[in-house]
Amino acid sequence: MRITFSLLLALIALPCSAWNCLAQAPYAIAIHGGAGDLPDGKGQAARMEQLTKLLNQGEKMLADGAAGLDVVETIIKQMEDSELFNAGRGCVLNEQGEHELDASIMDGKSLACGAVAGSKTTRYPISLARKVMTETRHVMLSGQGADQFSKLMGLEQAGPEHFVTPEQVKRLQRWKAKQSTSSLNSYPTPKEDPGIYYGTVGCVALDKQGNLAAGTSTGGLVGKRWGRIGDSPVIGAGTYADNKSCAVSGTGIGEDFIRFHVASDIASRMKYAGKSLAVATDETIAQLPEDCGGVICVDSKGNVHAKHNTPAMSLALANSQGVRQIQLAPPK
Amino acid sequence: MRITFSLLLALIALPCSAWNCLAQAPYAIAIHGGAGDLPDGKGQAARMEQLTKLLNQGEKMLADGAAGLDVVETIIKQMEDSELFNAGRGCVLNEQGEHELDASIMDGKSLACGAVAGSKTTRYPISLARKVMTETRHVMLSGQGADQFSKLMGLEQAGPEHFVTPEQVKRLQRWKAKQSTSSLNSYPTPKEDPGIYYGTVGCVALDKQGNLAAGTSTGGLVGKRWGRIGDSPVIGAGTYADNKSCAVSGTGIGEDFIRFHVASDIASRMKYAGKSLAVATDETIAQLPEDCGGVICVDSKGNVHAKHNTPAMSLALANSQGVRQIQLAPPK
Repeated sequence: MRITFSLLLALIALPCSAWNCLAQAPYAIAIHGGAGDLPDGKGQAARMEQLTKLLNQGEKMLADGAAGLDVVETIIKQMEDSELFNAGRGCVLNEQGEHELDASIMDGKSLACGAVAGSKTTRYPISLARKVMTETRHVMLSGQGADQFSKLMGLEQAGPEHFVTPEQVKRLQRWKAKQSTSSLNSYPTPKEDPGIYYGTVGCVALDKQGNLAAGTSTGGLVGKRWGRIGDSPVIGAGTYADNKSCAVSGTGIGEDFIRFHVASDIASRMKYAGKSLAVATDETIAQLPEDCGGVICVDSKGNVHAKHNTPAMSLALANSQGVRQIQLAPPK
Repeated sequence: MRITFSLLLALIALPCSAWNCLAQAPYAIAIHGGAGDLPDGKGQAARMEQLTKLLNQGEKMLADGAAGLDVVETIIKQMEDSELFNAGRGCVLNEQGEHELDASIMDGKSLACGAVAGSKTTRYPISLARKVMTETRHVMLSGQGADQFSKLMGLEQAGPEHFVTPEQVKRLQRWKAKQSTSSLNSYPTPKEDPGIYYGTVGCVALDKQGNLAAGTSTGGLVGKRWGRIGDSPVIGAGTYADNKSCAVSGTGIGEDFIRFHVASDIASRMKYAGKSLAVATDETIAQLPEDCGGVICVDSKGNVHAKHNTPAMSLALANSQGVRQIQLAPPK
């Protein structure tokens, strides 16, 4: 009888304790909409509004117990649909005036990851990256092959009329007018072209189950050519997540982010040098060339951090410990 | 007069000292021709012969003062021309029976790097990767765009008659016969298909000027589809070089090499945890799934090291301190 009673108590206590634990478990989210120069006044208001809306939504999902991967995909899909950011609809155009979309996603629990480079017909490249992660043994698909796989998965397709906006057509024309035809160097830095805004988007999250997730999506660099691939679809460069360290999404000059394997470098400084999220991140960004870009990060304790070395970066950060920050440029 | 004499002495002494220093400076080289299972008997002899010839050549170049990048490119070009390895001519074929070539190269002095994914018309993908590094501000070019750039650079072009060998056509047929049509998982592990041999090639070097260089070239995985990109063109995964730590080239299941950002992880363990080349390398390989692949590495002191967790790996290592090792499988 005593044993039965104890067993009953244990059966009641276990789920209650698990529930309490989950209710109090930390969560954290960070969203970015690119680093570079500040957009003009009208663009600023619209961005702040969008970032606020997305942060509220992501925070609520996490507070309600959603998986980090679902939050990352949900937030990025909306940014891919928004003309405000350089991802999905409204992305920058390549030298031929076409859209070529890159994205990646990573699960910090299993280190599973997926990426696509040069997708042209998939409405939500981040969802395609997730399908690569979950439905294939591959990590990275590219070009027409990536979109063939997308159709096989039944993902929503879209054409140029969806992705290409008049504003980006004009932007490409302005960019082309500035280029010397002999130049093999197909992108300007913010200093060379103060109007440029690297609008890559990304989201990182710690969910209440203790799992980290990271995702990034972009149209790349205006006027890019020769099938150029930047850091956004490169796991370890633009995107990385590992429950043992942190989740990172980056934005900026992708070539430097690949060269310094920025996202995994932050994780490695935490794992191998015992640095905190903030110190590891700041050290990694400090070694980049100036005006290069920035990152958002969360760690497994729910710390959130962002760092950029450009004049501005669109950021929204929040966690269950009360941090809440939305900004386009650092406070003066 | 005294000043003039001292000056004369200094002018003579300086170059002599520099020359002595250079003559005695350490150098090191490592070459690989893929990890997996042992090739059949005939293949073994041919591979040993080729690896010996290449090691002799690379060692002589370094002893004579050649730059590490030149050695890496020279060695890999010959492996791209050899039918023995899965790179350039004789590479494995994708699901459509086509060759799609990936390569990358990195300069440890400047962290400059270049990569190509899915090249089809360039005879030497490693040379194309080097042109991406030196002639553009990009790091990674893909597909038709990469070959357009190749033609612009005047690199030697080649067609299927050069790349596709009867042996690889047969191999694809054997592979296809084993596949279930419903499978989205397009490559077997060595355990599932004991005949498989991941024949990616790579070379890493420390030159007498103290500079590290790394390069990797591959046809990827037999039967790959959807524009799959593996680790070979991903800087930080299949290839990495940094004078502050080491130069690495990897081979194996590229998806895992990307997930664990293998090449840069070895460098990070050296830089942030103070591990030696051998310990850092062994730790990184120890975390990979079994039967996954292997790496070759050199550090800035001239140490050479290789580690694999597959039954076999084609290796050739040498340095100025007298190390010399050529093997297809670990000694019994």
